[in-house]
Amino acid sequence: MSETKTLASYIVNARFEDIPDDVRHEAARSLVNFMGVALAGSVDPAVDIAIRALTPFSGKPTAAILGRVERLDPLHASLMNGISSHVDDFDDTTPQNYIHPTSPVASAMFAYASANRVTGRDFLHAFVLGFEAESRIGNAVYPAHYDVGWHITGTAGIFGAAAAIGRLRGLSEQQMVWALGLAATQAAGLREMFGSMGKAFHPGRAAQNGYASAILAESGFTAGERGIEGPRGFAAVQSAKYDLTEVTRELGTDFNLRRNTYKPYPCGIVNHPTIESCIELHHAHQLRAGDIVAVRLRVAPLVLDLCNQQNITRGLQGKFSVYHGAAVGLVRGQAGLDEYTDAAVNDPAVTRVRERVTASGDPGLTEDQAHVEVELADGRRLTWFVEQSLGNIHRPLSDRQLDEKFRRSAARALPPDAIDIALDRCWRIAELENVGTLVDATVPAVQRA
Amino acid sequence: MSETKTLASYIVNARFEDIPDDVRHEAARSLVNFMGVALAGSVDPAVDIAIRALTPFSGKPTAAILGRVERLDPLHASLMNGISSHVDDFDDTTPQNYIHPTSPVASAMFAYASANRVTGRDFLHAFVLGFEAESRIGNAVYPAHYDVGWHITGTAGIFGAAAAIGRLRGLSEQQMVWALGLAATQAAGLREMFGSMGKAFHPGRAAQNGYASAILAESGFTAGERGIEGPRGFAAVQSAKYDLTEVTRELGTDFNLRRNTYKPYPCGIVNHPTIESCIELHHAHQLRAGDIVAVRLRVAPLVLDLCNQQNITRGLQGKFSVYHGAAVGLVRGQAGLDEYTDAAVNDPAVTRVRERVTASGDPGLTEDQAHVEVELADGRRLTWFVEQSLGNIHRPLSDRQLDEKFRRSAARALPPDAIDIALDRCWRIAELENVGTLVDATVPAVQRA
Repeated sequence: MSETKTLASYIVNARFEDIPDDVRHEAARSLVNFMGVALAGSVDPAVDIAIRALTPFSGKPTAAILGRVERLDPLHASLMNGISSHVDDFDDTTPQNYIHPTSPVASAMFAYASANRVTGRDFLHAFVLGFEAESRIGNAVYPAHYDVGWHITGTAGIFGAAAAIGRLRGLSEQQMVWALGLAATQAAGLREMFGSMGKAFHPGRAAQNGYASAILAESGFTAGERGIEGPRGFAAVQSAKYDLTEVTRELGTDFNLRRNTYKPYPCGIVNHPTIESCIELHHAHQLRAGDIVAVRLRVAPLVLDLCNQQNITRGLQGKFSVYHGAAVGLVRGQAGLDEYTDAAVNDPAVTRVRERVTASGDPGLTEDQAHVEVELADGRRLTWFVEQSLGNIHRPLSDRQLDEKFRRSAARALPPDAIDIALDRCWRIAELENVGTLVDATVPAVQRA
Repeated sequence: MSETKTLASYIVNARFEDIPDDVRHEAARSLVNFMGVALAGSVDPAVDIAIRALTPFSGKPTAAILGRVERLDPLHASLMNGISSHVDDFDDTTPQNYIHPTSPVASAMFAYASANRVTGRDFLHAFVLGFEAESRIGNAVYPAHYDVGWHITGTAGIFGAAAAIGRLRGLSEQQMVWALGLAATQAAGLREMFGSMGKAFHPGRAAQNGYASAILAESGFTAGERGIEGPRGFAAVQSAKYDLTEVTRELGTDFNLRRNTYKPYPCGIVNHPTIESCIELHHAHQLRAGDIVAVRLRVAPLVLDLCNQQNITRGLQGKFSVYHGAAVGLVRGQAGLDEYTDAAVNDPAVTRVRERVTASGDPGLTEDQAHVEVELADGRRLTWFVEQSLGNIHRPLSDRQLDEKFRRSAARALPPDAIDIALDRCWRIAELENVGTLVDATVPAVQRA
């Protein structure tokens, strides 16, 4: 029994008719969330730098980059889309494996669709299949793989990009086995990069290299036949413990997309219950920075494993600081994109409160829960407990909340009328005759023309 | 103490004057060996396929590919050079860490030097530094890293390419730290690919992605500051055991290049003592396939871990079959490039003997030793024992043997007079005003013009 072959066969042979309606709708929600977030991230300096550095190495500029006027070849456009859609740490999360799943898959697919005609129906189907490949392989190796330090969005993500592009290219089963093998042997990304541009580079490279894996396999470039399950394959090499049945169990009937979640705040998801508690406290008590003497957090232990940076100077670091999340929630009553800039991290009022926050890990709390106690200068002690944070699987963002998030995010890159067009095409993606028209709707120059 | 910073500082500040003469000469030997092997591999179908698949994504064709008429951008040329130089499994080996060290570093460097003017002196120095970075990082994680299934030529190789290209680009210390970090977070390559084109893809991607790491870092793309030694960095994530002192111990005084070795046979190095024994038996007894009833090998246990494939149909598989190595040695009395084609693997005489070989692992033997017993139809039993196989560190190929290897290898891609020119320029590399003239000497079209 070869998991690689079984998965490849499913990806090659699956039929759109067999994708349930709720899964199709969740796929559209994932793409709406992705696109807004990618547009917000497209103005980030990390994208500017990557485009400047790599344009001399780009092939013919046949592909648009989401939110940008520059054009590059589709592989480089995949990379840039991946950086844009993850650099704000605002993209989606499958909580059972902590993958940010849409970025590696959709970043490659939109680059592909901007250079090649793809119908919305084929696009949505290939996206579902890529998402499934990625998330199932992630399930197989989580948590040991993640715990040792792999950024699973990079490592699992490349399988999703290879599967989705391979499906769009119409690979044979043998070619798909090779594409997954070439993905396995390029799976990479270290959590040591968190807090630097390197983090967003991971889904970008996953998109780019997964795409290339499909293209190479299509041309006959061979790989090991058992890239996922072989004794020297992905699971055995990159995870101390793994369960390969996760790759194929209920394949085609159970869909990981049903367990996707969307963030209300652009930062590490484990900070969210703390942030929500602090925002609630801010609004309930009209808190100001000068009032706050001490802040004591009780959080799940994983929060301190991931987000324990307190002395920080850069916006990217703020995304992995539960202290910063608490501070902006208490001081500003919100935690949007503006709360994770370098300026916000160095805002004296925010810094003052951040330095007064202490945190302890409590194994009795889940990663959706946080308890916050604030001590005020007048002696009062305020507390708040979040049982299920907004955006988690039990309190998902509604379609309308996703609209709002899209509008706020996309406003960084697009004028208001262009935002409406792009949002409308995202929701109607399954009906589009050519997904390239959606990509065009995100490009300022095309919008102006 | 940060190994990443210490290593970066050394790479940025090292002086050519401080490289001892014997190390400079060994660097030239490494490059002679590399170039011959790359020229032989440049005609392999894996290179044809990769060029065909990826040319549509290549930037301006400013770089030559060793041995080929096509031109690509320098990143894609790096990839192709890496595939060419490893696809025959004929490149060099540092036995203390089983890295094939020159391919990832020199593949990127020759691509760079064909598109940018580089003096031979600067080239040789950057090569020494890249080799050192790669091999030291490999030493730090070997053997646990390799044993679990990483192809260390890919994983350690990317650091070497990043270091060498970063040095040629004149990166600052901070930029070099980022380049090493971006290399760390892309380090990849699974042993599951052995026997497929995926294996040679590893040093190719290492060259290409290491090069890109340097370019991105130069432009200000940030990475984690502790890519090698951080708690979620390369060593901790990719190796169950590691010794970081290997990265910096005697840096600048002890050179790993002194322990480089060159293969007489184009296959997995652990097969070499078996092959040499069989070649000796062939010549001593004028053996023919029909005479051979049984062949019994006693080899180091690692041989069976790496090269235990017996039922094979492809040349690439033959490189990892100690049975095939024994068969061609006994039947043909040689094990050159012609013995590792699909045709040779399917040669009835070779197949007949290969099927009669049995092998047992003997912990009392080193990987440089093998004992071979051949049983003949007339009842005789012949034995041979190799104590130190040719090409190992105690019986190195001489400069003249490297010349011979170069001539035989390069003949696959170049006419005789071009071979002489290329070989001469390889040996005199430190004196070249422009290394591009050496690259030009390897390109058939340029040679014809």
